[in-house]
Amino acid sequence: MTAKVNRQWCLATRPVGAIAESNFNWKQELVPSLEEGQILVRNIYLSLDPTNRGWLDERGNYLPPVGIGEVMRGVGIGVVEQSRNAKFPEGTFVQGLLGWQDYAISNGTDGTNLSELPKDPSVPLAAYLGLFGFIGITAYFGLLDIGKPKVGETLVVSGAAGAVGSLVGQIGKIKGCRVVGIAGSEEKCRWLKDELGFDAAINYKTESVLESLQQHCPNGIDVYFENVGGEILDAVLSLINLRARIALCGLISQYNAIKPVPGPHNLINLVYKRAKLEGFLSLDYFDRAQEALADLGEWYAQGKIQYRVDMIEGLENAPSAINKLFDGTNQGKLIIKVSEE
Amino acid sequence: MTAKVNRQWCLATRPVGAIAESNFNWKQELVPSLEEGQILVRNIYLSLDPTNRGWLDERGNYLPPVGIGEVMRGVGIGVVEQSRNAKFPEGTFVQGLLGWQDYAISNGTDGTNLSELPKDPSVPLAAYLGLFGFIGITAYFGLLDIGKPKVGETLVVSGAAGAVGSLVGQIGKIKGCRVVGIAGSEEKCRWLKDELGFDAAINYKTESVLESLQQHCPNGIDVYFENVGGEILDAVLSLINLRARIALCGLISQYNAIKPVPGPHNLINLVYKRAKLEGFLSLDYFDRAQEALADLGEWYAQGKIQYRVDMIEGLENAPSAINKLFDGTNQGKLIIKVSEE
Repeated sequence: MTAKVNRQWCLATRPVGAIAESNFNWKQELVPSLEEGQILVRNIYLSLDPTNRGWLDERGNYLPPVGIGEVMRGVGIGVVEQSRNAKFPEGTFVQGLLGWQDYAISNGTDGTNLSELPKDPSVPLAAYLGLFGFIGITAYFGLLDIGKPKVGETLVVSGAAGAVGSLVGQIGKIKGCRVVGIAGSEEKCRWLKDELGFDAAINYKTESVLESLQQHCPNGIDVYFENVGGEILDAVLSLINLRARIALCGLISQYNAIKPVPGPHNLINLVYKRAKLEGFLSLDYFDRAQEALADLGEWYAQGKIQYRVDMIEGLENAPSAINKLFDGTNQGKLIIKVSEE
Repeated sequence: MTAKVNRQWCLATRPVGAIAESNFNWKQELVPSLEEGQILVRNIYLSLDPTNRGWLDERGNYLPPVGIGEVMRGVGIGVVEQSRNAKFPEGTFVQGLLGWQDYAISNGTDGTNLSELPKDPSVPLAAYLGLFGFIGITAYFGLLDIGKPKVGETLVVSGAAGAVGSLVGQIGKIKGCRVVGIAGSEEKCRWLKDELGFDAAINYKTESVLESLQQHCPNGIDVYFENVGGEILDAVLSLINLRARIALCGLISQYNAIKPVPGPHNLINLVYKRAKLEGFLSLDYFDRAQEALADLGEWYAQGKIQYRVDMIEGLENAPSAINKLFDGTNQGKLIIKVSEE
């Protein structure tokens, strides 16, 4: 057996504003021999997500921050190449917090949170980082469990062309809502309307979001799925209906902020409209994942849901690629291909 | 019968910032004869509440704005002095939107929303504008239905010495919570701790709210009853626990603002903590009022709830008195005494 080299992106300094490659050190080390109970996972796909940015801040978010010197945390999919653990034999495909590296060593019960992936030849492996993974779970439960849309209601989604947002809008259509998406380019807006069946799409970079929402939501807004924050949240709050539900998934407009960003000016509308703003995380729904995956699988098979992946080749590109999430140049679920399946 | 004079405060101009007496015209007119179906109510007590401020803004709040030239809207208690309506015989005590005036004429089904008050000699009439009225209902359902406190949890209340806040904290103690109040003077803080049994009270005018909350909420914050907004909401959001509930009753710090006031900087904590911020109005609970009033009555009789009223004599003082709510100089439920019982 030849020695394997493990290339790793390790946190060097905490970003101030946008992530820079200089925030990481590129290390190469030999993969050590396994101890009893351990497995060696060769990483294949690495998921890049807005929430990763919060893991780099000193205060962390819902997870503690990545420590200086540690391998950058990331959800990935890999295959077990060596095993001294009967639960994960060689050749098993797994998902977990494998990190920004070529190889991860785990005992199956540590912080990598490993789970075995089902063997379904009809599902592309990378889809477990998207439609059939935590992205699908986020969209499904965030919309249905927090947003609780009813037939005929108006649903607005920000970050609508993103991995989560594009699913939310399509699920909203399946559930009988009028769906209005907010995205950052004409191409994205066309995709939402022409391909995904959104009733309307607003380009927040060229339109007044408030005026366009007024135009496209003549009956007000009943459900808002929030990925962005800032002025968009303000505009939506001014148009919510009685007992509106705002599912707070993320506030990507703030993640790179250097100074604290003020919240919306008209929170008081939550009182006037007896409305709620509720945060959630997909990980709280992992025990109900099968509900989501069964529906999503059926809708996908019926052609009711489309999904796109923005695949970037090469672990070395992770620190630069992640900024595509923040400048809006990604076209679908952003994934790094680390090695061949 | 001698002609009765009806003195009225009518809206002249919309306030910019704090309410000024010059925003109203003081009119005196003769009370007209009743038509069939009408009653004449002599106003006795007039409730002054933070929400009145929103009724003066051009956009209104949950009610349409008071029109220029119209009698200022206000909840009051009065007695039927003349009746041509069998449902409301002379001598009946009623509550409703009687307005800032000596006399109101109603047909019992119009916008005054009249309801007959129970005849209970043990209850002071003014209490129906407080503990046994919409103030009690607001505190009771806002805390129990939205905040859902559990035994041993930490409840924080802003505007804690106000009419609603002081009840919220006491109900929180009855329900077994650690209760921390935020108020605007040493006297109020002493009252909360020494008389009402709050576990701690923070004077936001002299203390760092964030540091004091950290000190007094060593286990974090599970329920927050919000009357104020601004920096206090920001401080609370930074200390909320997993699945915290924020009952949004009001944001009095903003009602007199001339420019839009930014919201909290750390709404994202609602995601990290899977927490919710939910607005409510007492009027949604009027059909369940008896639940609240039965419990409040029992607790009051048992000496578990105290309540204070700040009674101002004279309708002529309404426009100046209402500002006591905004500068914090009121000492309990603010009520104008319009005439003798």
